[in-house]
Amino acid sequence: MRNYKENHADSAYAAAGVNYDSLDAFKRLCQHAASTTKESLSPGFAEPPHIRGESAYLVEHGDSFLAHVEEGLGTKNLVADAVKDFVKRPYYAIGIDTVGAIVNDLVTVGALPVAIAMHAGVGSGAWFDDAARAQDLVDGFAEGCRRSGAVWGGGETPALKDVINPGAVVLAGSAMGIVTPKTRRISGKIKAGDKIVMLASSGIHANGITFCRKIAAEHTDGYRARLSDGTTFGEALMRPTVLYARFIRDLLERGIVPFYAVNVTGHGWRKLMRLDAPVRYRINVTPPVSPLFRFLMDRGGLSEREAYATFNMGGGFAVYVDKGDVADVLRIAESGGYEAWEAGVIEDGDRSIKIAGKDIFYDGSALNIRPEGQ
Amino acid sequence: MRNYKENHADSAYAAAGVNYDSLDAFKRLCQHAASTTKESLSPGFAEPPHIRGESAYLVEHGDSFLAHVEEGLGTKNLVADAVKDFVKRPYYAIGIDTVGAIVNDLVTVGALPVAIAMHAGVGSGAWFDDAARAQDLVDGFAEGCRRSGAVWGGGETPALKDVINPGAVVLAGSAMGIVTPKTRRISGKIKAGDKIVMLASSGIHANGITFCRKIAAEHTDGYRARLSDGTTFGEALMRPTVLYARFIRDLLERGIVPFYAVNVTGHGWRKLMRLDAPVRYRINVTPPVSPLFRFLMDRGGLSEREAYATFNMGGGFAVYVDKGDVADVLRIAESGGYEAWEAGVIEDGDRSIKIAGKDIFYDGSALNIRPEGQ
Repeated sequence: MRNYKENHADSAYAAAGVNYDSLDAFKRLCQHAASTTKESLSPGFAEPPHIRGESAYLVEHGDSFLAHVEEGLGTKNLVADAVKDFVKRPYYAIGIDTVGAIVNDLVTVGALPVAIAMHAGVGSGAWFDDAARAQDLVDGFAEGCRRSGAVWGGGETPALKDVINPGAVVLAGSAMGIVTPKTRRISGKIKAGDKIVMLASSGIHANGITFCRKIAAEHTDGYRARLSDGTTFGEALMRPTVLYARFIRDLLERGIVPFYAVNVTGHGWRKLMRLDAPVRYRINVTPPVSPLFRFLMDRGGLSEREAYATFNMGGGFAVYVDKGDVADVLRIAESGGYEAWEAGVIEDGDRSIKIAGKDIFYDGSALNIRPEGQ
Repeated sequence: MRNYKENHADSAYAAAGVNYDSLDAFKRLCQHAASTTKESLSPGFAEPPHIRGESAYLVEHGDSFLAHVEEGLGTKNLVADAVKDFVKRPYYAIGIDTVGAIVNDLVTVGALPVAIAMHAGVGSGAWFDDAARAQDLVDGFAEGCRRSGAVWGGGETPALKDVINPGAVVLAGSAMGIVTPKTRRISGKIKAGDKIVMLASSGIHANGITFCRKIAAEHTDGYRARLSDGTTFGEALMRPTVLYARFIRDLLERGIVPFYAVNVTGHGWRKLMRLDAPVRYRINVTPPVSPLFRFLMDRGGLSEREAYATFNMGGGFAVYVDKGDVADVLRIAESGGYEAWEAGVIEDGDRSIKIAGKDIFYDGSALNIRPEGQ
């Protein structure tokens, strides 16, 4: 859902033809109007402080928070359409990616998903005539729900003639979840000395796709271009999003509530300073730059500074935890099948990110995605 | 959300160029795959029986059901764009309509909405350059949330170049809600002798829009065509959807749990036999056919039988209640500002609808929107 707070005013995106000014103005309108509605909650329900800057919305009720996210896939389905002749079941990945967009946001507040719904809007019902593609999408979405410990409850499949292009699909959806008991809320109470643990991504996930499409359009071989490891660009892009719900569930069940959690999506590693807290995030360990990200940097003419500001660069999710919990967090991640590492530490300082060894520094002005006062 | 169970194979829609065959096949795939995921629910959460044929999804948890709906507006925004020069603030209505599509489904299972999220997908951020239109949309959505007793929690505003037409917007969203205590679930336990109470709509709400667009396209005056009461077709279409959340809340708070509730949307009054129950719904009182519906029937060449099978025809919502509660239900509706009437009665018989005085009869085969076994 992102609570209307994205700001993609980075140069790589502007160059790819995506202009977010009008969008951002609309999001500000939404933020303002939405904040006026909290008085509408019934007795027994309350909006907790500081939730509107977060990746999922919470409502306090009894000894729980109810959680809600609405999210979209973006345009990764256009890549899936373009690579279907040489990548196996790309829409299976798209189904998982759609769940990932929803659930990886939901769990950052400590909520576990309960039910997930799919929104699949088409310009024409004929989009579903490709039965194998439709089956792959459905199978991937169901698998994503299973991996997230959630039920696929329902959804909506509108045919919107004259709104959606006949050959395209708008994939999105929502989740409701729960934080119970309330002490499991991941609320952003971080301090100097806390450690940053990162979890590996599988590749691009579903962010930066407009940029990738531009690279493919400019390359003679398009999505069949070979990366340095011999795989095609298209195959690498279609690796399904890693779902981090199990990791958060396992942490919470073993009594570890991270101080904060970040789904590294748009804005890349700048997202690590999503909180307003006046601290410096010092990253000491970055994963090796994969052939996919190296290809994107080379073809797109991106500096490392731009690349880490745009993509997840191999780090798909981060939690900030007490230094005494790091070993347990790493063990829990690994037992859940995740690759994880101690990436860095939170230090006193102005709000900023320092990636040591790469000479990358983002000051606080590089990420401004919270509504005022949150 | 509709749990993937719509079937719009009626002739008026087919004539308007909407073919739902491929869509229905996809919905069946979704139904099947979704039903395989209920084992993924964590201990303490369970899917209640017979929920997958309903308009909202429920998960049992403690002494409550958590409720979830994902729904879309459809294409009514195209009407709003077409009438903006002579209808005041059409996007304010669109905002309310979008909330209505979500919330009027949610409350049919006895759930009260807690948080609502907006999905507004555009082909280009330039859609939001019309600041007055954007403000109207936001104001309408917020007002819809307020009228529904829910908070606007967040949302998603993707710019989907090459997917959504540059001039269009895909409006949808989701709600999470709650049925608490569980005895407030509206579950479909109906029997002969129960009474049908209907609540007035404000007009078309947001269903049958493709048909209306076709009528406008064929009429010299388009949306400026005059209805018999002197208002324009466009004005009449843009009356915002009535929100029935307050009505359901007021009923539940006064201890009246309807046996069933129906949001009269696609399929018109055929929706009254949404349940599989082997009963006949006998309607004795229909509201006068408004100038808008008369116009649609005349211009579209619809018989009364087709019109009641397609539009809400002035009856936007129905509840089935004990005959001893009818007077209270009517009083509660009126005190909430709704127009309501005792419309009919449930009788023993084959699953069918009889509209007395209009000589309209729909047998069970006229509505088949439930997944198998639900």
